[in-house]
Amino acid sequence: MSLSINRDTRLCMSLSGRPGNFGTRFQNFLYQAMGLNYVYKAFTTRDLPAAIGGIRALGIRGCAVSMPFKEACIPLVDTLDASAEAIASVNTIVNDEGHLRAYNTDYIAIRKLIDSHGLKPETKLALRGSGGMAKAVACAFRDAGFKWGHIVARNEAAGRKLAQTCGFSWAADTSGLDAALLINVTPIGMEGPEADQLAFDRVDVERATVVFDVVALPPETPLIRLARSLGKPVITGAEVIVLQAVEQFVLYTGVRPDGALIAEAAAHALS
Amino acid sequence: MSLSINRDTRLCMSLSGRPGNFGTRFQNFLYQAMGLNYVYKAFTTRDLPAAIGGIRALGIRGCAVSMPFKEACIPLVDTLDASAEAIASVNTIVNDEGHLRAYNTDYIAIRKLIDSHGLKPETKLALRGSGGMAKAVACAFRDAGFKWGHIVARNEAAGRKLAQTCGFSWAADTSGLDAALLINVTPIGMEGPEADQLAFDRVDVERATVVFDVVALPPETPLIRLARSLGKPVITGAEVIVLQAVEQFVLYTGVRPDGALIAEAAAHALS
Repeated sequence: MSLSINRDTRLCMSLSGRPGNFGTRFQNFLYQAMGLNYVYKAFTTRDLPAAIGGIRALGIRGCAVSMPFKEACIPLVDTLDASAEAIASVNTIVNDEGHLRAYNTDYIAIRKLIDSHGLKPETKLALRGSGGMAKAVACAFRDAGFKWGHIVARNEAAGRKLAQTCGFSWAADTSGLDAALLINVTPIGMEGPEADQLAFDRVDVERATVVFDVVALPPETPLIRLARSLGKPVITGAEVIVLQAVEQFVLYTGVRPDGALIAEAAAHALS
Repeated sequence: MSLSINRDTRLCMSLSGRPGNFGTRFQNFLYQAMGLNYVYKAFTTRDLPAAIGGIRALGIRGCAVSMPFKEACIPLVDTLDASAEAIASVNTIVNDEGHLRAYNTDYIAIRKLIDSHGLKPETKLALRGSGGMAKAVACAFRDAGFKWGHIVARNEAAGRKLAQTCGFSWAADTSGLDAALLINVTPIGMEGPEADQLAFDRVDVERATVVFDVVALPPETPLIRLARSLGKPVITGAEVIVLQAVEQFVLYTGVRPDGALIAEAAAHALS
């Protein structure tokens, strides 16, 4: 990936505890492919207020926000878009001439995926997880009209709190929930110590009609592979990470890449 | 000029009222030619304290500082190198793990050019100008042991102040100064409204033994052309701007490019 930089180039960036390469590779690929004079660079910080102040003072166009800054940045921006307000969590800041507006493109992406995959609000769901991303996903389903189902979390306090926020019930484990839509928002199946584990039991997957795994690396988790082998429709974490990054790209640049180009950028960034 | 960016890439930048392209082109050329994982981008700001705070909080490796921020940034950094302290003016900030140390590589460059061109401290000089760069140049000559000569400035207060700072005399104009070393640190001869003007009279150039013009764009000012046509040794502003940029590069990266590569980078950046 190569880019040209001159005095008019606009900088976009990310702030996270442990910067990855996905955003850098995805955004820079599209900037170059579309001939946009932008450049993207990942950062971390130990002083979030000064980092956000720097974004404003330096005219940095946009900033992706990841753990552990998604809630801490809320008092540091000027206005919240409905997507961030809905879940009190920010993953994107857009700087318009010093005015910082915060969004949550994870939430936006999940809402779009619910629509594009034709998921029906009367479906009973079981959502495993209770962290920040689980909140974005659960609230997106709530706001899409989903009313029945469980938040499954070993952490009872967090699980009950999220269930209450979104109008679902809490369950300690997945057994006997009889859900048609299974949603994993835990690290189970992610590259690392839990890479070989299944987020839901085989019997639950057999009963389900749709399986959604938010884990993006690898895109083919054990859960997704099992669901595919059983002929179930799936939604992968790769769809989420790419779609939320596209929404960030659109917020930063004002232009929307076409599907073929998005697929190319995704293949480049996930490779 | 093209660059690769990943999560480990270090950002260097500039802060100035009106960003140019020289630093961006020069530094990025060398980063790429030497295989260094750095990228350089120019910025301006309307909030210098927040911009400097952002440099610290985001771990931005280094920052070139130009007008109108060279003195205003002094209270915002942690320590001053002797080069910045000598003239109470900063053109470079280096960030070591959140500790900001300020330098003046214009001063360093002038000191090096005095040495490399073999200028003798007993030479009588006439330095035209009284702005920030004139201060850097005059102090560099003072600290190299030059004791005789004039600061020539229409602005009497600024001219007298600088003359006093550096142990020279003040003169309102260049006539009759009988200086062997002529130094122009005004915009006379620079691209723009004064491009065709001579910073010193022809008779003064004829009498001089060395002519130094700090104007870098164009490198061949009317003063330099006249001096060359009279067979006088010259020092050009291109030498200053390139050498000070090399010193910034070394401060940011810890490595020194060789002369051939510097010449290539300079040709690229000044083209």
